[in-house]
Amino acid sequence: MLAARMNKLTPYVPGEQPRDRSYLKLNTNENPYPPSPRIKAFLEGFDVDRLRLYSDPLSRDLRKRIAERYGVVEDRVFVSNGSDEALSFCFYAFFDSDRGPLLFPEFTYSFYPVYCDFYQIGYERVPLDESFGVDLEAFLERPSCGLIFANPNAPTGHCLPLNRIRSLLERYPEDHAVILDEAYIDFGGESAVDLVRNFPNLVIVQTFSKSMSLAGLRLGFVIAQEPLIKALFTVKDSFNSYPTDMLSQKIGEIAVADTGYYRSITRKIVETRERFSAGAEELGWRVLPSKANFVFASLPGVQGEAVYRRLKERGILVRYFDTEGIRDFVRITIGRPEEMERLLGEIKKAFQGNPPAGD
Amino acid sequence: MLAARMNKLTPYVPGEQPRDRSYLKLNTNENPYPPSPRIKAFLEGFDVDRLRLYSDPLSRDLRKRIAERYGVVEDRVFVSNGSDEALSFCFYAFFDSDRGPLLFPEFTYSFYPVYCDFYQIGYERVPLDESFGVDLEAFLERPSCGLIFANPNAPTGHCLPLNRIRSLLERYPEDHAVILDEAYIDFGGESAVDLVRNFPNLVIVQTFSKSMSLAGLRLGFVIAQEPLIKALFTVKDSFNSYPTDMLSQKIGEIAVADTGYYRSITRKIVETRERFSAGAEELGWRVLPSKANFVFASLPGVQGEAVYRRLKERGILVRYFDTEGIRDFVRITIGRPEEMERLLGEIKKAFQGNPPAGD
Repeated sequence: MLAARMNKLTPYVPGEQPRDRSYLKLNTNENPYPPSPRIKAFLEGFDVDRLRLYSDPLSRDLRKRIAERYGVVEDRVFVSNGSDEALSFCFYAFFDSDRGPLLFPEFTYSFYPVYCDFYQIGYERVPLDESFGVDLEAFLERPSCGLIFANPNAPTGHCLPLNRIRSLLERYPEDHAVILDEAYIDFGGESAVDLVRNFPNLVIVQTFSKSMSLAGLRLGFVIAQEPLIKALFTVKDSFNSYPTDMLSQKIGEIAVADTGYYRSITRKIVETRERFSAGAEELGWRVLPSKANFVFASLPGVQGEAVYRRLKERGILVRYFDTEGIRDFVRITIGRPEEMERLLGEIKKAFQGNPPAGD
Repeated sequence: MLAARMNKLTPYVPGEQPRDRSYLKLNTNENPYPPSPRIKAFLEGFDVDRLRLYSDPLSRDLRKRIAERYGVVEDRVFVSNGSDEALSFCFYAFFDSDRGPLLFPEFTYSFYPVYCDFYQIGYERVPLDESFGVDLEAFLERPSCGLIFANPNAPTGHCLPLNRIRSLLERYPEDHAVILDEAYIDFGGESAVDLVRNFPNLVIVQTFSKSMSLAGLRLGFVIAQEPLIKALFTVKDSFNSYPTDMLSQKIGEIAVADTGYYRSITRKIVETRERFSAGAEELGWRVLPSKANFVFASLPGVQGEAVYRRLKERGILVRYFDTEGIRDFVRITIGRPEEMERLLGEIKKAFQGNPPAGD
């Protein structure tokens, strides 16, 4: 019954969304603060009758707002049903392993190899450097059909400065796409959006799920030069002409314009991250420097899975990875100050003076 | 820059959504009546803060409601971002032209060949019978990896009775998928959902866009036996883990439960269709019998494109097809009674006693 291509799939496993009890969810990098307060008034006044009509298949109004916010022209913006869909369309449009494998970091967003399998694109994982950073030099040392990496990277939180990215782009073939997944860029990194003007192969992918606090809405976007955006529209119109609905488009417009509110909640998250990191280090944890809304951290002598289990028993969810090389770590989403205080308290109780090495 | 697979794409062209002036839109089969009146209260009371969290990647609550409505178990229901996405996932999961081409009717939803090109699936178009019906017997006369057809079919409106579909399924190999696209089934056809229990290869695809009056929301669903639904989840989790957002899931739940309201607006559309068809026939038009929320009609001596142009000048949009064999026709969405009266009036003025054969 199933097509042969189905045999090659190993699907992505999204973070745990349990329903058995109420947890403090620090496992899927959701924003602890609500989205723009302006959304409420919009929903209250929305004329429901309009839902009978199709949404704009080109998402023109939302693309215009995003373009204004990032100082680009509208024709350089593409909007999608979450950044996962944008990434999928990019893999389809830009990567063709006839020209060599796609390269991405050994530890990064685990959906990248899934997209490769989905579209049968060959790939190669490039080891991180010794400080868990993405090794851009290593990308240049072997043939490839393109590059993708997250900046800040997940699950490490490590962020490359803009000059390093520019230097990579200057030395990489300009007819091979480079996708920069900036899902977490607003938490302290510097976006490479301005480089799009100089590099015809640069593709910036961002999301409304993290810094915009709209994970439940499913909106992502791409900024790149016109021929690449045009290709993404061709892919969209070969897959689903209307991928974003009317409510999401409008709520996205409101969010992207409310820069003041989002600046304030982002600042709080960054402050909390720094305070939590210092607190965890005081308790003997190793916390990698992060520019994201999460930290990658380990307690010497305890595997990530054991940390996860102990904290889950105490009502707190974090994420561990059953992957050689990062088994010692857990990824902890940064919540509100009081939530992170609670986590530090539970960590003390669970692990202090009672090293559970045998877990 | 672009992957080689991009050269094979000829994207679908969605119906015209003009912004230059206000038209009476009878071109994209939207419902003229608003969706369930219960949606307004939901949006007014919705706790916007929840949007910071991911939507349920399994759409469990909505699938449960759909399952209840159609008398199936929840594990036989899959929910997608519009039925176009569901169709795309089905093509990926079930059709593999190593086992023969996919067969579909010569005139049908024009997205089907686009999906084939997208996933590089071979296909063959099977001519309609002489009354513009889908020729099921012809599906059995040649090798194939699967079948897909719309019932009622678009753009013809022709609907096959359930016994003909059952008879096809009884004679078709049960390890080859048969997709039945029931986007328009609620306007007078009889759904084949109950046949799912007997046929492990039957896949029913439906949408919230037409009879549920929620085109702007983007929701579709699939009903099939568990192994096929499981395959669709594998495809989803290899493409986009969270394809439906929190608001759409909740609004979908409300709509699918409000059967009384939807029965009443559907009845009105069916009545209007019959009255309009009779009126157009009185004016000399040929109107194919339709069980959809549109009719396929032609004015002898005038090409569809000329009809489209003349009506557009008069502020009414219909859809024509620049395709050999159906150039004489236009597809006209059924609107409210007063809208169809207006259309009949404009038809009289535009074409009566003034055959524009030279247009």
